[in-house]
Amino acid sequence: MAVDAERRTRLVEALKASSHDALICSSASEVLLLTGYWPVMGASVAVFHSDGEVKVVLPEDELEIAQKTSDAKLIAYKPAGLHTLESPLAQLAEKLRSATKELGRARIGVLTKEGMQPATYAVSSQFRSSLLTLLRQMLPQAVFESCDEMIETLKAAKTPKELDVMQTACHVAAVGFAKANACIAAGLRETQVAATVQAAFEETSEALPLQRSYGYFFCMSGPNAAKAAAAYARTRQRVIEQGDLVMIHANTCADGYWTDLTRTFTTGEPSERQKEMFKAIMEARAAGLKAIRPKVLGRDVDTAVRSVMEQHGLGSAFKHAAGHGVGFAAANSNGRPRIHPMSDDVLEVGMTFNLEPAAYFDGYGGVRHCDLVAVTADGSRVMTEF
Amino acid sequence: MAVDAERRTRLVEALKASSHDALICSSASEVLLLTGYWPVMGASVAVFHSDGEVKVVLPEDELEIAQKTSDAKLIAYKPAGLHTLESPLAQLAEKLRSATKELGRARIGVLTKEGMQPATYAVSSQFRSSLLTLLRQMLPQAVFESCDEMIETLKAAKTPKELDVMQTACHVAAVGFAKANACIAAGLRETQVAATVQAAFEETSEALPLQRSYGYFFCMSGPNAAKAAAAYARTRQRVIEQGDLVMIHANTCADGYWTDLTRTFTTGEPSERQKEMFKAIMEARAAGLKAIRPKVLGRDVDTAVRSVMEQHGLGSAFKHAAGHGVGFAAANSNGRPRIHPMSDDVLEVGMTFNLEPAAYFDGYGGVRHCDLVAVTADGSRVMTEF
Repeated sequence: MAVDAERRTRLVEALKASSHDALICSSASEVLLLTGYWPVMGASVAVFHSDGEVKVVLPEDELEIAQKTSDAKLIAYKPAGLHTLESPLAQLAEKLRSATKELGRARIGVLTKEGMQPATYAVSSQFRSSLLTLLRQMLPQAVFESCDEMIETLKAAKTPKELDVMQTACHVAAVGFAKANACIAAGLRETQVAATVQAAFEETSEALPLQRSYGYFFCMSGPNAAKAAAAYARTRQRVIEQGDLVMIHANTCADGYWTDLTRTFTTGEPSERQKEMFKAIMEARAAGLKAIRPKVLGRDVDTAVRSVMEQHGLGSAFKHAAGHGVGFAAANSNGRPRIHPMSDDVLEVGMTFNLEPAAYFDGYGGVRHCDLVAVTADGSRVMTEF
Repeated sequence: MAVDAERRTRLVEALKASSHDALICSSASEVLLLTGYWPVMGASVAVFHSDGEVKVVLPEDELEIAQKTSDAKLIAYKPAGLHTLESPLAQLAEKLRSATKELGRARIGVLTKEGMQPATYAVSSQFRSSLLTLLRQMLPQAVFESCDEMIETLKAAKTPKELDVMQTACHVAAVGFAKANACIAAGLRETQVAATVQAAFEETSEALPLQRSYGYFFCMSGPNAAKAAAAYARTRQRVIEQGDLVMIHANTCADGYWTDLTRTFTTGEPSERQKEMFKAIMEARAAGLKAIRPKVLGRDVDTAVRSVMEQHGLGSAFKHAAGHGVGFAAANSNGRPRIHPMSDDVLEVGMTFNLEPAAYFDGYGGVRHCDLVAVTADGSRVMTEF
């Protein structure tokens, strides 16, 4: 696996700036950040030293994936087996002890605060406070400190290599949206549309370069599209009617890098009201894109989008922020940059976020157009050109 | 929402036995156990008092789902909005303070150890140690103690109402397996089969009684079926060949209750070797089912299955335990009962687990037949009659 030298350099610099000797993380997104390998079962622990050396203690079942995606030193353990009924943490303890033996008096950054994590599998391990308890026992003279803010900052701007994987994620997701455009029709249930779109996404050969490609497509039609302003999307059994707005929302994943995408369709020719909603939203999108460049604040981009919505009389229908950091998760309340009226997050080259102008009317429906955008040296690049 | 009076009674009795005044949990499976409502975003906190009163502080976006599935007192909060950039925990603090105000000097059970949680959404919140820190600040004279073991014990035996939802989950999953039987063919890629099966599952009207029905179908063929002995399943882009064993594995969810199911198919007429593998596995399954009844130990069921595999010369090919507790998650290394050679877990009426005799040969393939089983007063009931 080729090294992501840029990511390693950034981590080393961040540790130098914070005077930490190492970072130790077990949450999947953070293991990905530190190693390039995205755990499946959540039972892996990454140890990143301030000199750039990185090790990961991982289940032996995940070696194949890790070898193809990471150049970290891989230290395999057997989380379960016919020989034991002990838990994964008990099984990895010895390997972790040897991976951390140089850290006797170190200052070590760990995650302690609330955070959001993507779904890595149908079920996954959480060490809760037990990993930190174990580390304190192993390294009684080390100092453990919260590195939550540092990690969020590091996750915000992607390296060129990370951007490449995110671009692949967008290409794979595009297949689902193309299918949505072809298959949405009055008379189908939302579940049928979502299933058809999901299947097109899952079987595409666009995903061939990836170890793991999966994700979720949702369909919300008519009044249910108005409910898409919520923090989560939900496909229901509603039968789509002629004249409905039909929203397709996707959160898809390419080897640990996520998308957050929405397109809205109509059954039949859009009505005048619908045309006005689409027109306002596409103008707001253009204004938002125009505002994006390095050193601009998150709230300035939100204002650019929101102003256009207000000019079209859709200010109160635009119920959420104009965007949020996307990449190491599809959404993250701590994720930078926040494209929000109160955000003073400063845009930097490589930051990736969604731009999602929208209008929702309870009982009627909603339109949202949600793209994935990367900040470039002189502006922005839309990663979702479909 | 009808009360699950039986679950409430069991919780009250468990708290009485442990002398706790309350349980406070935020992990999704535990909120489900305490309230009947399965959180979407992982940012809900359930408070169960020893007198049977139960409250849950939840995001307002999840009220609709909670109202349809729970009779707990619902206390809504707004985790995010245009008015704030603070995190969900900061937003719920005030509501949590009022929900816990009677617990000033209480003994309170909380989860502190490692555990496994199912995927509730594409991304979800984890409070890590921050919720406990907040609770300690709010209730400085209360005593917080680990209730991890108590919770695992409570989750093992399902109430009749919980069994009903699990049975529905099995009916919905059966649609996917019926499609698998019809669509598997040489020349298709694993991703194509998995997508077709998944779509049949997602669009079926069998899921109409549920608020949320989703899950994952995986396809592993030929040599990849041998790798299914791992802790996780994985669909790849391999083209299925004539003569392959083709394994379909499913983890599906009905309103928070999970399945763990596998069937194995062949492309064309099975070979003699394949016939022998299937024969051994179905005999082992029958022996396992015959061994299941209240008061039997988990290891006795494992032995019943394993002995048959050994008699057929497949002992070393059967690489994992004969089963594990399923329900509040598709798999859980702490989940009871463990149907494992070393398990002294005692079977009780209502316990649900999978029974999964299997044989794996590296480079060739594998056969696994994984059912969901419930312990009854006089034996067992197979919930997956397909």
